[in-house]
Amino acid sequence: MQIYRAEMPGPSKDRLTPRIATTAKLLWGVYALMTVVEAVLLKFVGGMDWFDSFCHAFGTMATGGFSTRSASVGAYDSAIIDTIITVFMFLAGVNFSLHYYALTGKPKRYFQDPEFRFYSIFLLSATLFLTVNIWMDDWGTFTRCFRDSAFTATSIITTTGFGTADFDQWPDACRLLLVSMMFMGGCAGSTGGGMKIVRVFIMFKKMLRELKLFMRPSAVIQMKLGGKPVEQEIISHISAFFAIFMTIFAVGSIVMTFFTPDLVTAFTSVVATLGNIGPGLNAVGVTQNFAEISPLGQAILTFFMLLGRLELYTVLILFLPSYWKR
Amino acid sequence: MQIYRAEMPGPSKDRLTPRIATTAKLLWGVYALMTVVEAVLLKFVGGMDWFDSFCHAFGTMATGGFSTRSASVGAYDSAIIDTIITVFMFLAGVNFSLHYYALTGKPKRYFQDPEFRFYSIFLLSATLFLTVNIWMDDWGTFTRCFRDSAFTATSIITTTGFGTADFDQWPDACRLLLVSMMFMGGCAGSTGGGMKIVRVFIMFKKMLRELKLFMRPSAVIQMKLGGKPVEQEIISHISAFFAIFMTIFAVGSIVMTFFTPDLVTAFTSVVATLGNIGPGLNAVGVTQNFAEISPLGQAILTFFMLLGRLELYTVLILFLPSYWKR
Repeated sequence: MQIYRAEMPGPSKDRLTPRIATTAKLLWGVYALMTVVEAVLLKFVGGMDWFDSFCHAFGTMATGGFSTRSASVGAYDSAIIDTIITVFMFLAGVNFSLHYYALTGKPKRYFQDPEFRFYSIFLLSATLFLTVNIWMDDWGTFTRCFRDSAFTATSIITTTGFGTADFDQWPDACRLLLVSMMFMGGCAGSTGGGMKIVRVFIMFKKMLRELKLFMRPSAVIQMKLGGKPVEQEIISHISAFFAIFMTIFAVGSIVMTFFTPDLVTAFTSVVATLGNIGPGLNAVGVTQNFAEISPLGQAILTFFMLLGRLELYTVLILFLPSYWKR
Repeated sequence: MQIYRAEMPGPSKDRLTPRIATTAKLLWGVYALMTVVEAVLLKFVGGMDWFDSFCHAFGTMATGGFSTRSASVGAYDSAIIDTIITVFMFLAGVNFSLHYYALTGKPKRYFQDPEFRFYSIFLLSATLFLTVNIWMDDWGTFTRCFRDSAFTATSIITTTGFGTADFDQWPDACRLLLVSMMFMGGCAGSTGGGMKIVRVFIMFKKMLRELKLFMRPSAVIQMKLGGKPVEQEIISHISAFFAIFMTIFAVGSIVMTFFTPDLVTAFTSVVATLGNIGPGLNAVGVTQNFAEISPLGQAILTFFMLLGRLELYTVLILFLPSYWKR
């Protein structure tokens, strides 16, 4: 249950079934089913061979982003493959409990979930922002720009890291929006990394509440998520998580300047590893890799990957003197 | 009292005297006295003329950083002037109540104040980090490097913005450390901008507490500052402030990419204005200025300067629909 909770940072303690083992098996089933469906689609609709289709399905559902081609998914240059992978990356970034409900005849649960709504609306808005910006910057037809924007935005926010376009060449506004999305990550209970959408959404609500409190200092404003009140303690945990994430990002970026050719490489190498994304910008951009970074620098980034994947705390407490005293 | 509180974000509601008007007069007296002392020192010890000495004293005590010379304080190339201004910038970044206590015979109050201790220790550590880094990068003798580092670090953390060295040419680790310090700002109750040291310190304590709570989930850990407990509500307000500041920074940076030649200029132009610092990096670096940015871009940055100076909320609530409903 503790492992389960560490992966579910939100206020929801939704377990699907009373027994945690049964829940785990159900979620495992959903995961396996979606992987097979994606692989079959990539094979028969997308035209990949079996090996590639399964490798890409594994890379998508795990939001791992490891392709069999050096040029990643871009190597296929296929609108159909891009679309299939975009859809499945999107699904992999959603709380898996919702997929289970959908498969058992309750698809409405998707739209009742505030995190899912925030995730979908934000992703759609970001895609449109990117599309318009790269279209005005002459990156092809509007359809092509939309396809690349949707793929890239989904790949980054779900922390998958597959690439079809060299977004590092896009206008700075697009690059910086994508870097901001690296912080966000997937929904709680998905395979995505980053800070997780539910945390971002709760921080967003906290900020709004704070402004209202400033206006009416004696008001009592209860934060709600999907109609249910959110405990003050959970908000406090999330604020602390946010601060710890940003501090590691800031300190890590200063450390990484010693191993990278420029500032932008330094800070994007940290967020790309801490959020488990894959590509960053400049020297660690989508067409580059981390090979040029010295072994010590790579060791530090490896540490950040572990730190991000284990939701920070499990690793950080090892540095507290009081941990060793017990 | 509301204006006073808006400028005192910390848990302390220390008013020096029961009457707010008397407190204001006392603080005003401290401010005026320190300005005169600095001006006299700059004239008779530093060798400036009266006009320059007063202008620089005004720029120091207000942490405004406006020099009479284009090359800022660097134009004098005087170790004595650098030292006087460094000391007074440091003092201008301290809570003015502490100066009042010191002037009335209670100098021990400085070291009893946790914010002052954090500020001094952090600033000293940052200065040493910068000194060693630029010294190894061949920026002159160790003494010269220490002098430039102390001046620059103090100028940035207090949000004064005076310059003696082109820190934009320093190694990336130094540049990024200075950018991080732009977020911090001076102590509560000082003339400095930024997020204020007390907020950073409380967030730091909150992060430590969070890790301890992760280790022992049922422990009750009360946060203390200078031996006094800090209310949960104040910690919550500070977390929200931190999140709002970072959100404005992120969104503002994306917007500024449309007006700046590169990413680093974009995000440092935002923190330099939001924190009321002055210089940023690259195209808005210490030897550059904001003249190259288009009028619309300048208007946005002007808005950020106001936003930062007014501690965000006063301006942000104007954008809440509910503010206009009443």
